[in-house]
Amino acid sequence: MNTSITLKQRPVGTPTLADFEMKEQEGNLTISDGELLLKSIYISVDPYLRGRMSAAKSYIPPFEVGKPISSGIVAEVLDSKNKKFNKGDFVAGSLEWKTQQVSNGVGLQKVDKDKAPLSAYLGIIGMTGLTAFLGLHEIGKPKKGETMVVSGAAGAVGTVVGQIGKILGLTVIGIAGSDEKVAMLKSELGFDHGINYKTTKDMKAAIQEAAPNGVDIYYDNVGGPISDAVLFNINKFARMIICGAISVYNKTEIPTGISVQPFLVKNSALMQGFIVSNYADKFPDAMKHLSTWLTEGKLTYKETIVEGFENTPQAFLDMMAGKNKGKMIVKA
Amino acid sequence: MNTSITLKQRPVGTPTLADFEMKEQEGNLTISDGELLLKSIYISVDPYLRGRMSAAKSYIPPFEVGKPISSGIVAEVLDSKNKKFNKGDFVAGSLEWKTQQVSNGVGLQKVDKDKAPLSAYLGIIGMTGLTAFLGLHEIGKPKKGETMVVSGAAGAVGTVVGQIGKILGLTVIGIAGSDEKVAMLKSELGFDHGINYKTTKDMKAAIQEAAPNGVDIYYDNVGGPISDAVLFNINKFARMIICGAISVYNKTEIPTGISVQPFLVKNSALMQGFIVSNYADKFPDAMKHLSTWLTEGKLTYKETIVEGFENTPQAFLDMMAGKNKGKMIVKA
Repeated sequence: MNTSITLKQRPVGTPTLADFEMKEQEGNLTISDGELLLKSIYISVDPYLRGRMSAAKSYIPPFEVGKPISSGIVAEVLDSKNKKFNKGDFVAGSLEWKTQQVSNGVGLQKVDKDKAPLSAYLGIIGMTGLTAFLGLHEIGKPKKGETMVVSGAAGAVGTVVGQIGKILGLTVIGIAGSDEKVAMLKSELGFDHGINYKTTKDMKAAIQEAAPNGVDIYYDNVGGPISDAVLFNINKFARMIICGAISVYNKTEIPTGISVQPFLVKNSALMQGFIVSNYADKFPDAMKHLSTWLTEGKLTYKETIVEGFENTPQAFLDMMAGKNKGKMIVKA
Repeated sequence: MNTSITLKQRPVGTPTLADFEMKEQEGNLTISDGELLLKSIYISVDPYLRGRMSAAKSYIPPFEVGKPISSGIVAEVLDSKNKKFNKGDFVAGSLEWKTQQVSNGVGLQKVDKDKAPLSAYLGIIGMTGLTAFLGLHEIGKPKKGETMVVSGAAGAVGTVVGQIGKILGLTVIGIAGSDEKVAMLKSELGFDHGINYKTTKDMKAAIQEAAPNGVDIYYDNVGGPISDAVLFNINKFARMIICGAISVYNKTEIPTGISVQPFLVKNSALMQGFIVSNYADKFPDAMKHLSTWLTEGKLTYKETIVEGFENTPQAFLDMMAGKNKGKMIVKA
């Protein structure tokens, strides 16, 4: 029997379990020439999926109502009629939320479980790590001695960005949503400072205190009022890397905030949105850095692993609510 | 007798004549070795001066209360004890709002009235032209066939940016504040489309209609709601050149608007603030282009010239209120 998780309806505001539907299909899947039979092992749940659940045009097409959700998945090859893959291989790629599925192999990459734990191919040495590394390098253009603020710092990308910042000699300030997360940033991941935005009344002042020399780089995963507070502290030629805006993804009205333009003019500052695939030609080089740092012990990673394929929607909701530390992954 | 115009008090909100004071000084100015005696001929009034009238830190220090305002000025050398300049020369540079003044010559450039009208050294072949050219090239990275929107299109920088856009093969849409200005953009400056924001109810729809293929480049002089409307129409990889934000310079509260971050993420779009001096190393090349286009008749320029040194504050207020077409200049 094969189980899939579909988008039952487009969420309005904050998604709920009622927006998803579990569908079961009897019988065994069969494959034709060139195809693979895959069994999902690890499923990645990420903020950008919220955007795809809405009908609005974005950088990737919206999910279709009644069809399975898809995201980054590590799967085992149960059977293969494709020359590139053998039974027993593990692969990573964008796949559907199904316990088992048939693929033609396009867009899948083999992963080696002896080189790194399989879940890491969704995180630190997968899209998460690449997003952290390439956003920081290509847009942030970090220079040793500069000060970087990371929002969503305890999340999948944030935890990696902060550590890379430290490797590159930056002063790193992480903003997160609990004292426990802030403690983790400082004691386990080497961040210089952490700010709990949920208990801090004056974020502008708190950032100023943590960054007395001003903010040169802002790696932004959240948008909203936290990003407004950072604006007041940017230096001349500041670079703001706009990776995500999770704080507004569930808004039903168009979100508003401080006008950024006067800050950009005054400081000759930059804001640049991106998606990691813009830098696909730089993946091999970025991967080399990430793997080396990981092997050398300079980089570590955090995962929140939820057991059970059927819990994937709840894991997604929990991630959106900030209940994860590091990468949120479902073990199918 | 020498007259100067000082900042009497820092304006709150929209500046008025009461914020300025005319001071007269009896007697003749004398010069020492290395100095020049200058007589102001043309005085530039620009939006950025509003920022310097406030106490807030910006890219240039604020004006001091009780001291003369300064801006771009073309002056005649009445007397010289400086080897680099002779009596009868004309110079351009940042000088004080005085009918006559003494300078040590630092930062002044000789200008040739046989090559171009003296006022042009404040505009098309001065900071205005450089701001238009370099902002568009360095940040906008225009490619033939793309669509550009220019706000403040009938102003000093806007009129030049739009024309350069046409020279480079862009579709150019200008946003301005009167039907007369819009007519000028189209009939005299070659803009493809013009939008009068004061009579247009739905700016988002009007921009969409003028730019059915979306906006690739936005040269922004105004900020505020006009820029919000542009955001809804940007294409993937759009570049937004943040040159100024005149619509908010007189605000007494921190201006707010649409959150830009979700648009930047969705479109991998860029917003970059700048000041022309960031690109000082590129002035010679930019000037060569501007002069050539001017000589070839590919580029023209608009000026609104106000007679009388004593009318400089009023000219500044009128420029802030959008009463100028093209560059606003006072003939002393």
